[in-house]
Amino acid sequence: MKLDAPIAVTEIAAFIGAELVGNKELQATGINEIHKVQEGDISFVDFEKYYNACLTSAATIIIINKEVPCPEGKALLVINDPFSAYVKLVKRFRPFEPATKAISDSAVIGEGTIIQPNVFIGNHVRIGNNCLIHPNVTIYDHCIIGDNVIIHAGTVIGADAFYFKKRAEREAIYDKLESCGRVVIEDDVEIGAGCTIDKGVSGDTIIGRGTKFDNMIHIGHGTIIGNNCLFAAQVGVAGKARIEDKVILWGQVGVSKDLVIGKNAVVLAQSGVPASLEGGKVYFGTPAENAMAKKKELAWVKRIPEMWNKLKDL
Amino acid sequence: MKLDAPIAVTEIAAFIGAELVGNKELQATGINEIHKVQEGDISFVDFEKYYNACLTSAATIIIINKEVPCPEGKALLVINDPFSAYVKLVKRFRPFEPATKAISDSAVIGEGTIIQPNVFIGNHVRIGNNCLIHPNVTIYDHCIIGDNVIIHAGTVIGADAFYFKKRAEREAIYDKLESCGRVVIEDDVEIGAGCTIDKGVSGDTIIGRGTKFDNMIHIGHGTIIGNNCLFAAQVGVAGKARIEDKVILWGQVGVSKDLVIGKNAVVLAQSGVPASLEGGKVYFGTPAENAMAKKKELAWVKRIPEMWNKLKDL
Amino acid sequence: MKLDAPIAVTEIAAFIGAELVGNKELQATGINEIHKVQEGDISFVDFEKYYNACLTSAATIIIINKEVPCPEGKALLVINDPFSAYVKLVKRFRPFEPATKAISDSAVIGEGTIIQPNVFIGNHVRIGNNCLIHPNVTIYDHCIIGDNVIIHAGTVIGADAFYFKKRAEREAIYDKLESCGRVVIEDDVEIGAGCTIDKGVSGDTIIGRGTKFDNMIHIGHGTIIGNNCLFAAQVGVAGKARIEDKVILWGQVGVSKDLVIGKNAVVLAQSGVPASLEGGKVYFGTPAENAMAKKKELAWVKRIPEMWNKLKDL
Repeated sequence: MKLDAPIAVTEIAAFIGAELVGNKELQATGINEIHKVQEGDISFVDFEKYYNACLTSAATIIIINKEVPCPEGKALLVINDPFSAYVKLVKRFRPFEPATKAISDSAVIGEGTIIQPNVFIGNHVRIGNNCLIHPNVTIYDHCIIGDNVIIHAGTVIGADAFYFKKRAEREAIYDKLESCGRVVIEDDVEIGAGCTIDKGVSGDTIIGRGTKFDNMIHIGHGTIIGNNCLFAAQVGVAGKARIEDKVILWGQVGVSKDLVIGKNAVVLAQSGVPASLEGGKVYFGTPAENAMAKKKELAWVKRIPEMWNKLKDL
Repeated sequence: MKLDAPIAVTEIAAFIGAELVGNKELQATGINEIHKVQEGDISFVDFEKYYNACLTSAATIIIINKEVPCPEGKALLVINDPFSAYVKLVKRFRPFEPATKAISDSAVIGEGTIIQPNVFIGNHVRIGNNCLIHPNVTIYDHCIIGDNVIIHAGTVIGADAFYFKKRAEREAIYDKLESCGRVVIEDDVEIGAGCTIDKGVSGDTIIGRGTKFDNMIHIGHGTIIGNNCLFAAQVGVAGKARIEDKVILWGQVGVSKDLVIGKNAVVLAQSGVPASLEGGKVYFGTPAENAMAKKKELAWVKRIPEMWNKLKDL
Repeated sequence: MKLDAPIAVTEIAAFIGAELVGNKELQATGINEIHKVQEGDISFVDFEKYYNACLTSAATIIIINKEVPCPEGKALLVINDPFSAYVKLVKRFRPFEPATKAISDSAVIGEGTIIQPNVFIGNHVRIGNNCLIHPNVTIYDHCIIGDNVIIHAGTVIGADAFYFKKRAEREAIYDKLESCGRVVIEDDVEIGAGCTIDKGVSGDTIIGRGTKFDNMIHIGHGTIIGNNCLFAAQVGVAGKARIEDKVILWGQVGVSKDLVIGKNAVVLAQSGVPASLEGGKVYFGTPAENAMAKKKELAWVKRIPEMWNKLKDL
């Protein structure tokens, strides 16, 4: 996420109680986890094996749990627990703002847009023109909805990322990574009833133009869905996946995180996608593979008893 | 759907801008897509391969994209884009009526029925006697609920059919087929929490008497569920399926569209049903097959290494 | 469930119209189905094969459909239809109390807890301190929420158990076992958006301390989830399962009823768990088995054509 105004790195260091190493004149302009960093951003790293990736990323200010040589023009904020320091920053710069009413005064709603009863629209939400938001929909703070978007009843846009850090030393061992990202739904999208689309940890979850979702579809944090995709009911896509344009996922398909499904791919019902898939092909099975090959495999399995008999007769 | 009053075919032709061929004296009494047509209905066809099915169907007035010989006693409305013309008619004769309150004044609610807080009940909804509608339920316009029905929290009855026409020539390539059907829930049905039951495209989605749904069940448009069925949690049934009486679907079963599952069939958990199943039997697997045969197959698969060793030793 | 005050067994007998056999001085202190009975409880049994289990259970007062020798110090309530008698008692001692407002005056809500708009909180609900309940959440009567709990939008806590008795002789053949249990969510739990957690039939459904749920998770009646579990999106767990501490279930996993998943077990995405699993291991497949063995099996299946060719050449 972008900060509303730049903040001096010295102020950041003082606020989280970190030792400041490197360029003390810097101004932070954003806060992002490592997958979304841009120049000017504060990010964090707390595993040595990821140090290099973070230090060489676009991030300008890095919260880190060990003093290491500071890359030219950057700043390190050395502190024992970078995760908690990052969360503290998120909570300061994007504090949760409890609602005072069901449709926030800070929300901007376009012309011709119909909001049905019992809808919740959070703070700083922007909704375009000619949308139809059906009853009992929830749109969390900061989400962005384009023009001509239909969202069916009971759908939840912008709930928190499912992202926790394991701590061994406590009774409740999972620390929440506070989400400061958004959901962005582009023009001409239709979202079915009872869907849940989580916000990004620090960036955007995006549903591309003209994409259509059936009911009860789950989209994880930071996932990017292209234009003109069709997802049938009960599909689930984990966090940080990238689904390119015109992909078709049939009912109950599950897609794992951190992968790419190429343009025009089709994944048949109930398949499970654990890794990236090339575009333009049809897939089936758990794990999903070429649908034709998978169907042949299913036919081969049925021939095992025949093979057994042949083998016995030898 | 039935029209509130008959409309002259000449008026229809003028409204959509079509050339009228055949019987110019006809009155339209309904609008239906081809799977649900009755005498007096307007329907549409835009693929040559479906012309014959539509021309010989019960439909009396056919919107078509080419002039063909008009069947005796019928009328053709010839127009370049029958799909858009049909949608225009649906929007005219069943326009979306934005809600002015959470429970419409035009809804009829029977004696002894309890409506909990935060429920939405749309225009022209009818709910019978002694029902219990839990919080945050949404019932879209025109749906019909019988007597002694329980609907648990967060469930959505009557969202739009997931039905789009692909158009190559645009940025957003999917055109929505506006739904004008309903959901009809018969007496003594219980629907769990977080379910979504879509309305028919032009006809009814029906949940038969005494059927019980667990939570998070999705039922697609125009699907007809018989009496006394039991569906466990997270089952999904696509559009226009027909599930006969006393069918049992266990958890997370997926059922494809346009098929029939016969009376008293049982489908075990997580199975996927791609095609019709005979009644009275137990099924398992994706694709679902006879459960006993499927379990034997699973046992055979475990013997492949043994077969390999035998083969090696020959 | 516990009764608010003890009730004389003679009063119970008169109320349901049963013949009282055995100790007529007893006081009932609770009502529970057989899996949850404690001393002082009324329970019921209507199948001969379960008579012994019920008569020798902790239950003090047993509704039964045949006169049998009464165990020392207990009482039998002999009646033709024990199921209906039990339901009648549940309805008397835990009658459904229609809401008069969206957040019941009898609910107790702790300090620092934020309730967002459009939330329903039923009668006698208790919510601890520093919780955050997002919009459109439904919490049914009697549920208990600890401290520092986050519940995301659209989630339903405490809907009825999916539990019916089949009756041959009627048009609607399923009789509902009225639920009188609760959902208990312990401290530091986070529940994602669009989840459904059913109440116990007569006891508690428990989500243990520090457990984190992603979106659209279904938990059946009376299931007990340990501490610090992680469940990914669209997981479904049936009734009366027991999931021990730190179990991880990946997306779309399905878990059957009446089983135990041991501490630290991990079940990979889309797996189906039909029976108990030992702790500390990784599982995959439907039915779920050792993940490594399952992956080897998948590799073996791919070698069937090679085996076939070898066999042909012999």
